[in-house]
Amino acid sequence: MAKTKQKKEEPIILITNDDSIHAPGIKALTEAVKDLGRVVVVAPDKPQSGMGHAITIGYPLRLQKVNFIEGVEAYTCNGTPVDCVKLAVDKVLHRKPDICLSGVNHGANHSINVIYSGTMSAAMEASIESIPSAGFSLLDYSVEADFSASKTIVRKIAIMMLSKKHNKHLLLNVNIPAIPESLIKGIKICRQAYAKYEEDFIERKDPTGKMYYWLTGEFVNFDKGKDTDVWALKNNYVSVVPVQFDLTNYAMKEQLEKWKL
Amino acid sequence: MAKTKQKKEEPIILITNDDSIHAPGIKALTEAVKDLGRVVVVAPDKPQSGMGHAITIGYPLRLQKVNFIEGVEAYTCNGTPVDCVKLAVDKVLHRKPDICLSGVNHGANHSINVIYSGTMSAAMEASIESIPSAGFSLLDYSVEADFSASKTIVRKIAIMMLSKKHNKHLLLNVNIPAIPESLIKGIKICRQAYAKYEEDFIERKDPTGKMYYWLTGEFVNFDKGKDTDVWALKNNYVSVVPVQFDLTNYAMKEQLEKWKL
Repeated sequence: MAKTKQKKEEPIILITNDDSIHAPGIKALTEAVKDLGRVVVVAPDKPQSGMGHAITIGYPLRLQKVNFIEGVEAYTCNGTPVDCVKLAVDKVLHRKPDICLSGVNHGANHSINVIYSGTMSAAMEASIESIPSAGFSLLDYSVEADFSASKTIVRKIAIMMLSKKHNKHLLLNVNIPAIPESLIKGIKICRQAYAKYEEDFIERKDPTGKMYYWLTGEFVNFDKGKDTDVWALKNNYVSVVPVQFDLTNYAMKEQLEKWKL
Repeated sequence: MAKTKQKKEEPIILITNDDSIHAPGIKALTEAVKDLGRVVVVAPDKPQSGMGHAITIGYPLRLQKVNFIEGVEAYTCNGTPVDCVKLAVDKVLHRKPDICLSGVNHGANHSINVIYSGTMSAAMEASIESIPSAGFSLLDYSVEADFSASKTIVRKIAIMMLSKKHNKHLLLNVNIPAIPESLIKGIKICRQAYAKYEEDFIERKDPTGKMYYWLTGEFVNFDKGKDTDVWALKNNYVSVVPVQFDLTNYAMKEQLEKWKL
């Protein structure tokens, strides 16, 4: 009886990402938390980096049950990371999970990257749905990236998220420096640095002589603040930025009220 | 000489949208402002609604010069609305435009829609690039929507944006009620209402018997505030929400600092 009761109270942890179910990062994330509750994975069937908060309107979505990690229910979806969260809640779980974890992303999602990131948009979608959420990213794009420190960080934050009642819109952007765990100085709560990409499209001709452009760019940080995520990561800290989906610029709202429109 | 000087000082207005260059809304927007400066249109070649802040990483982008409205330089792009802005600045204009206008969207982008909207993400991309920007949306999804009131509003706001130095990150989310111009009570500066979509995927079988899901949902407003965009629109006002790309939740940052991570 006691065991049944315990089972019933087991938290549900929804896991997704934007690098697809085939990425090592989502395996690392799942392994880090799989004993903390009932873990369900719904992840894209192919890479969806840079998809931002895109949703699929124009074509139907598919869910495919797949083998993943023993004891973990897993599905792939042909849509975006945000689609994965919507489908997971509505058609897989048929209820809200207790928390949603996204990642571990292969590559940084600090500062302005939060806007473009499918990893963070998936977590934000869960937050809109009143599910406390976190996106995790390791500052290493490589498929052979070492996720051992990330697993420690994920587990620590997931336990904290599960351990008490938080604001239902809790949404964390967690970035982890690509250094051995022993060199990580700690976890810093930060604000999003003001940075952007200086675009520099590659311009080439295709085999028929027509021009094409390929997006590339250099990350430029304009923000020297020591309270930013960029600063924390450069100084060997894990950065945690609490994120919100209310995009109102309240300071500018006051200025605009003087415009007499 | 005087004329040449005036020509040199003519502001550059970049126009884009997410409904594609074929949508009546972008024609209306362009017509509303085409005498205010040098107007350049770079818009998606196909509908890109719900693309959020997606960027194209995995394949090359194309630009195609097209006939649009007399006296207006126009291009289509095979990418997302955000790609359009990046390409326009880097490969079409080779400089920053004075302002960027996006829309007029066929359908609302108030409250939570700002997160999913390609229209608003294009404007936000320009704002990240320090280009004062605005996204315009009419609360009518129809291809036959009446944009006459929208044209008046667009022109009024564009003139205001051009008339003085603003914060370089000025970013406005303008929504226009689908009523005759004579019934519009005015323009209200608002905050983003807290609302969301209650998902309800259509679940069907394809001709081979496999299940598919199609995203649908009902818009639910949880926010009774009279200072919100939803309230303004319901009460026949045009809503203007100043938007920002710093997603830091500063209130939650203070709480998190007590977590002892």
